[in-house]
Amino acid sequence: MTAQSNADTAQPKSRPGPSITHLRLENGMDVVVIPDRRAPVVTHMVWYRNGAADDPPLKSGIAHFLEHLMFKGTKRHPQGEFSQLVADLGGQENAFTGHDYTAYFQRVPREHLATVMEYETDRMTNLVLTDEVVTPERDVVLEERRMRTDSDPSAELSEAVQSALFAHHPYGTPIIGWEHEIETLGREDALAYYQRFYTPENAILVVAGDVEPQDVERLARETYGMVPARGAAPERRRPQEPVSRAHRLVTLADPKVEQATLERVYIVPSVRTAAPGESEALEVMAHLLGGGQTSALYKRLVLDRKLAVGAGAYYLGSSLDATRLWVYGVPAPGVSLQDFDAAIDAALAEFIDTRPSEKDFVRAKTRLVADAVYAQDSQVALARWYGAALATGETIEEVTGWANRIEAVTIDDVVGVARKWLDKRRAVTGFLQPEAQA
Amino acid sequence: MTAQSNADTAQPKSRPGPSITHLRLENGMDVVVIPDRRAPVVTHMVWYRNGAADDPPLKSGIAHFLEHLMFKGTKRHPQGEFSQLVADLGGQENAFTGHDYTAYFQRVPREHLATVMEYETDRMTNLVLTDEVVTPERDVVLEERRMRTDSDPSAELSEAVQSALFAHHPYGTPIIGWEHEIETLGREDALAYYQRFYTPENAILVVAGDVEPQDVERLARETYGMVPARGAAPERRRPQEPVSRAHRLVTLADPKVEQATLERVYIVPSVRTAAPGESEALEVMAHLLGGGQTSALYKRLVLDRKLAVGAGAYYLGSSLDATRLWVYGVPAPGVSLQDFDAAIDAALAEFIDTRPSEKDFVRAKTRLVADAVYAQDSQVALARWYGAALATGETIEEVTGWANRIEAVTIDDVVGVARKWLDKRRAVTGFLQPEAQA
Repeated sequence: MTAQSNADTAQPKSRPGPSITHLRLENGMDVVVIPDRRAPVVTHMVWYRNGAADDPPLKSGIAHFLEHLMFKGTKRHPQGEFSQLVADLGGQENAFTGHDYTAYFQRVPREHLATVMEYETDRMTNLVLTDEVVTPERDVVLEERRMRTDSDPSAELSEAVQSALFAHHPYGTPIIGWEHEIETLGREDALAYYQRFYTPENAILVVAGDVEPQDVERLARETYGMVPARGAAPERRRPQEPVSRAHRLVTLADPKVEQATLERVYIVPSVRTAAPGESEALEVMAHLLGGGQTSALYKRLVLDRKLAVGAGAYYLGSSLDATRLWVYGVPAPGVSLQDFDAAIDAALAEFIDTRPSEKDFVRAKTRLVADAVYAQDSQVALARWYGAALATGETIEEVTGWANRIEAVTIDDVVGVARKWLDKRRAVTGFLQPEAQA
Repeated sequence: MTAQSNADTAQPKSRPGPSITHLRLENGMDVVVIPDRRAPVVTHMVWYRNGAADDPPLKSGIAHFLEHLMFKGTKRHPQGEFSQLVADLGGQENAFTGHDYTAYFQRVPREHLATVMEYETDRMTNLVLTDEVVTPERDVVLEERRMRTDSDPSAELSEAVQSALFAHHPYGTPIIGWEHEIETLGREDALAYYQRFYTPENAILVVAGDVEPQDVERLARETYGMVPARGAAPERRRPQEPVSRAHRLVTLADPKVEQATLERVYIVPSVRTAAPGESEALEVMAHLLGGGQTSALYKRLVLDRKLAVGAGAYYLGSSLDATRLWVYGVPAPGVSLQDFDAAIDAALAEFIDTRPSEKDFVRAKTRLVADAVYAQDSQVALARWYGAALATGETIEEVTGWANRIEAVTIDDVVGVARKWLDKRRAVTGFLQPEAQA
């Protein structure tokens, strides 16, 4: 039930992947079944192809607000009943809003799958949205924003960095929304949003667990399949970011900051927007550059030059529109952020000029794929990978073929994308510093 | 016929002002008559209360594009006829699009006022918008953008600075629009925009010159008065900018740059959004700080410390929403932009800590008011002041009372607004530098 960035939903990285079933109900709702028979449990998720980046103008935060309201009950199942049910079954539930999607999930013993499907279907269409429900929940969201962002300089800086990076595209607007717009969200907004986006054409059911595909299909037809079609999926209309030619440095100084940190974010192509192979090359490049303590940035900045106590990089592949690559670090005591920033520039230039060794390169690819296989040990993570990918326009084949595409990446590909995309003019750098240093 | 910022339309600064007539036609159109009998000429302007900041999402540039299209002719008066008429009369014409308004004007011998009113009324409702007209003009606008912005690093930097300053409010979108959105503008967009905004309720007629108010009123009823009312002025719905807590530095390096320059822009209240007296105090403050060679910045940075070859500041008061205060400068040879930036910080801190002398303060106010009186010597400037003010929600009384309000500003007011609004966390600094320096 929290606003969160897409950053923690990495690519599913399996090879060979599980045998996935994918079908579409007559009303347009997608159904995906992922067999996982290690325990008699099932993970049930419904993904809607709308996230904070689809919030209408002046209504930032409505996607996340609606996610909160989805727990407020229906006529048939009053507030609290669904959550109590999951708890009584010894299950887990959660929901999350990203820029590209909103999702709801429960993990329960397999024999209760039908029950959670009935409840989830019910709140897809029968949500009760009265002023009595909506108004107090808005205060809850405002308090969540104050706690998570407005009192945390690090979160504030990230918000300002994203806002500078995406001045036009709505990825620059925080998922939770701007405070002054959250304050205006009311029942009419919630209702209009719910009616526009909570439709079968816009939804994806993902079930992972110890289930037979044909059973899930039958249950899906009996529950979600009964929701009338609306005729078409809602349109996603988003302003796209113009190409930047100017680097932007965002500096936030605050007395609450004890340790200076630096983040730099580049706009780069996502799996969905990239030329063939480019997203995979970016993934390998980010890992070589900043994945762990054997990475180029860590070795140069932390081990060799002792300028940093930490440094890394990562790439967010799953994104409907152009996405981001992060470089970050914590300078060593006595190293100013300005000097650290220059050292990062030098390390990146060196990374580009010095081709990775064949040994490092092969190790990076092996590690990436292995990490993905390990991560699939979590059933929820497995379901989440597929859900996030499908909700951002990828196909199941693209997901299951990911590891093969990673293995096809060459050193030239990596050097090529580094040279092309590590362009500071496309980037925003954020300095978080103690107030005294400002 | 150009996209231009509001920056060049300063406050009208008269005291006592001319005797202005203001009335509203039955269809909702405002009529303002400003007597100016020095020559037998008349300036005729129509202002629409829509500018680039009212462009619908994904349609940036449509206000400016429509301004171009307004010269494309009607059934009654084919393309070129209106312009030819004005030229034949020895007159002048122009049009301009700001973030808050779009305006059209002609200056002709007074006996031809009725004729230009007839033509302007005609194109308020009868514009011919076919693909044959719209598509080639879009290429003209794209070429205008390429010439004016994309090949001028200084213009590119200003665009990037505004975009970083207003990441949410549409003042961050260039008036001419983003290239990738201009490319999508078509006949349907132009037509929808024209029908929405080119209405009598949304228009203001300003006539300045050697005319009798009752004659203008009669002519207005016979021309604009015949346009049917639509019922209400179109709504202006703009996202507002959240308060920034992080300074942003935008750096653009380009081989075409020969001289490094610096601009810093603060978000500050406009005449319309300010608390009483605050906008006037900002105006006086900007003048003391950076109006000419006797100003604090010029004295400290250019004359005393020899760090700059130029420095100044100005405030844009007329703005529908929160507005901007600029500080700018050109560093002396051998002075880096980083050092110059720090010197500006020091000069601003000194300005705040050192109260202006009574003599400087009185001189600044006298000069501001005198400048305004001199500027009114231009009939077009006079008409433009009133038009811009009315189109951004000010009243005629606010305009004519401006000089009195300036005189009421105290030194405490100036120090107060400087302390409150010269907050770097609300500001964006832009560095324009030669490529080699990058």
